[in-house]
Amino acid sequence: MIPGPASPDHRVLLAMSRRVINHRGPEFKRLLEEIQEKLKYVFQTKNPVVILTSSGTGGMEFAVGNVVGDGDVVLIPSMGFFCDRFARIVESYGGRVSWIPVEWGFPVKPDMVEEAFKKESNVKAILLVHNETSTGVLVRDLPEISRIAHEHGALVIVDAISSLGGIDLPVDRWGIDACVTGSQKCIAAPPGLALVSVSERFVEEAKRKKTRSLYFDLEAYLDYMEKGQTPYTPSVPLFYALDEALKMIVEEGLEARIRRHRKCSEAFYKAVEALGLEVYPREPEYRSVTVIAIKVPKGVEAEELRKVMSEKYGVVIGGGHGRLKGLIVRIGCMGNVSAYEVLATVNALESSLAELGYRIEEPGRALAEAGKAL
Amino acid sequence: MIPGPASPDHRVLLAMSRRVINHRGPEFKRLLEEIQEKLKYVFQTKNPVVILTSSGTGGMEFAVGNVVGDGDVVLIPSMGFFCDRFARIVESYGGRVSWIPVEWGFPVKPDMVEEAFKKESNVKAILLVHNETSTGVLVRDLPEISRIAHEHGALVIVDAISSLGGIDLPVDRWGIDACVTGSQKCIAAPPGLALVSVSERFVEEAKRKKTRSLYFDLEAYLDYMEKGQTPYTPSVPLFYALDEALKMIVEEGLEARIRRHRKCSEAFYKAVEALGLEVYPREPEYRSVTVIAIKVPKGVEAEELRKVMSEKYGVVIGGGHGRLKGLIVRIGCMGNVSAYEVLATVNALESSLAELGYRIEEPGRALAEAGKAL
Repeated sequence: MIPGPASPDHRVLLAMSRRVINHRGPEFKRLLEEIQEKLKYVFQTKNPVVILTSSGTGGMEFAVGNVVGDGDVVLIPSMGFFCDRFARIVESYGGRVSWIPVEWGFPVKPDMVEEAFKKESNVKAILLVHNETSTGVLVRDLPEISRIAHEHGALVIVDAISSLGGIDLPVDRWGIDACVTGSQKCIAAPPGLALVSVSERFVEEAKRKKTRSLYFDLEAYLDYMEKGQTPYTPSVPLFYALDEALKMIVEEGLEARIRRHRKCSEAFYKAVEALGLEVYPREPEYRSVTVIAIKVPKGVEAEELRKVMSEKYGVVIGGGHGRLKGLIVRIGCMGNVSAYEVLATVNALESSLAELGYRIEEPGRALAEAGKAL
Repeated sequence: MIPGPASPDHRVLLAMSRRVINHRGPEFKRLLEEIQEKLKYVFQTKNPVVILTSSGTGGMEFAVGNVVGDGDVVLIPSMGFFCDRFARIVESYGGRVSWIPVEWGFPVKPDMVEEAFKKESNVKAILLVHNETSTGVLVRDLPEISRIAHEHGALVIVDAISSLGGIDLPVDRWGIDACVTGSQKCIAAPPGLALVSVSERFVEEAKRKKTRSLYFDLEAYLDYMEKGQTPYTPSVPLFYALDEALKMIVEEGLEARIRRHRKCSEAFYKAVEALGLEVYPREPEYRSVTVIAIKVPKGVEAEELRKVMSEKYGVVIGGGHGRLKGLIVRIGCMGNVSAYEVLATVNALESSLAELGYRIEEPGRALAEAGKAL
């Protein structure tokens, strides 16, 4: 129950044991076409979705490096660890980051974006983390923010690594120019592939610019995509697994999948409240659907809590990143998450807290509340 | 029988169906340590071997981008397609390529390297493709070339993607500063991981330089390696597969594995001669051990030959890259290659050639010659 990688289903894991085929042959071409079609469904886009053999960070670098170069100004709201990572990539490609100050635990709001555009001219792009895994905060105003950015002629680049496939994100309708996700979170395939949708505008901008990376050069991927190939050797077993995981999404239906994610997260939040614990994001409407960030109560050590949950109950949860280390714990609620995982995790959390001396007002109520929400 | 990816053994493929573990936990740390130890054995090095979730090209970019920057001069012998790829990476990182002209089908020789160093001062590195897959040529003078480069203060960066694990390449003894390979060739794991050994000198040079890629930044990999982690989400199933493939190398023994590769390639070359065909590399001593490049005889179409071999005999071989397209075919001889693969391929080649109107002087002699060599 860590905030990703999610546990892939057995069907997905076993798909990897198929024969490694020639990635320059007709079989691979068919596989790629089938994956592409399903990715368009999950991304809710008509545009191509580039598949990189890399982690999600590689996808972030791809989305930045193809359009941002020396001296380009990029807006980034400072909402957590992964916003900082975006900034480091921008700087490594010679761009200048103009921060939109946001207090951790809160999301960026449209008026802040509007104001930031007034202060800076010639902004190349706004970089947003849709679901900031480090703080458990979800940016719900993405459509409005995207509209503002386009009014100012800026590209909208979204890190949806921990949300796409589990939270509604209609890429075309919301006007997102590059949407990045990884294979290993809500899509529930194993880690190792980054998926990036690219709008026409993004492609045009990238063509005007020479990127500095060969491995992450958009044009090469688009050229080879037409041949039904990738420019460099793809990890064929990961492509098999992705195909199988996408099949499972199609079978479940994207809407039903998003509903399941929402239900499970509601169950978690109800349980957390019943335990008398505080959620890290201050406003309920900005709480993430896929990562539940909980403040560790006074008197309990975060690492001790995680250790007891893992060793005694077999439930592994995440800790806090950077300056939130020791202050919060984080529960992943993504991929194949269901009542089984929610209830077992709530039970382990309650029992472990009690064991570490935390006083539970009404033992068992957290489970009951979670059950009702499921 | 394409020139990679090699077909992984079932043991290796099935290893991927194990549970995806937390890559920030103790289990992954142990896995990484075990892989590291075996990689040192295969690379014949005491230095760290960085593992990237990317194709081999990502590994080439990593080896170049961490030490080459604006205005740096880099020597590259022009021996084929993958030398060109190295050059494109150098240029994308702002470096200047000083070509050592080499006729395709021949390897670079030490006197050419000596001469190139006389013409250029302040050479940052020499970039060598150990085994040029596009032409089937092996650089046998690597130790001597490496010695010359070090005398001139240059780093030695080697693309050993299609050779390491199948051809002897004692990285430390030959003074190679960065040796790049992929998981999918002679190591016979599935594609998706790049492996790069880095010498102390390479690390020092990289630390003096700020690289432009976050995903391929050496310092992050070295920092996380100390914690038993990778900086970005690793493809856990590919790590399982790599571990299993490395176990198989340890069980076979590196020396025996190298001997097996040599024997199989000798069998192929004997058979090719018995069929009256010409090998592409002009001098027998520079013929590759892992990729057999054969000129297509007059009157036979390369693509037709490949098609018949594949459709009628189930043996898939490679064609020529770029300007060698249509002129040569290429047979992979790597990974788990054994008498089974060699004999079936020779038989398919002979039968397909005969079917396409090529006159075989002594039918069956090619198989007999191959058999004797095995």
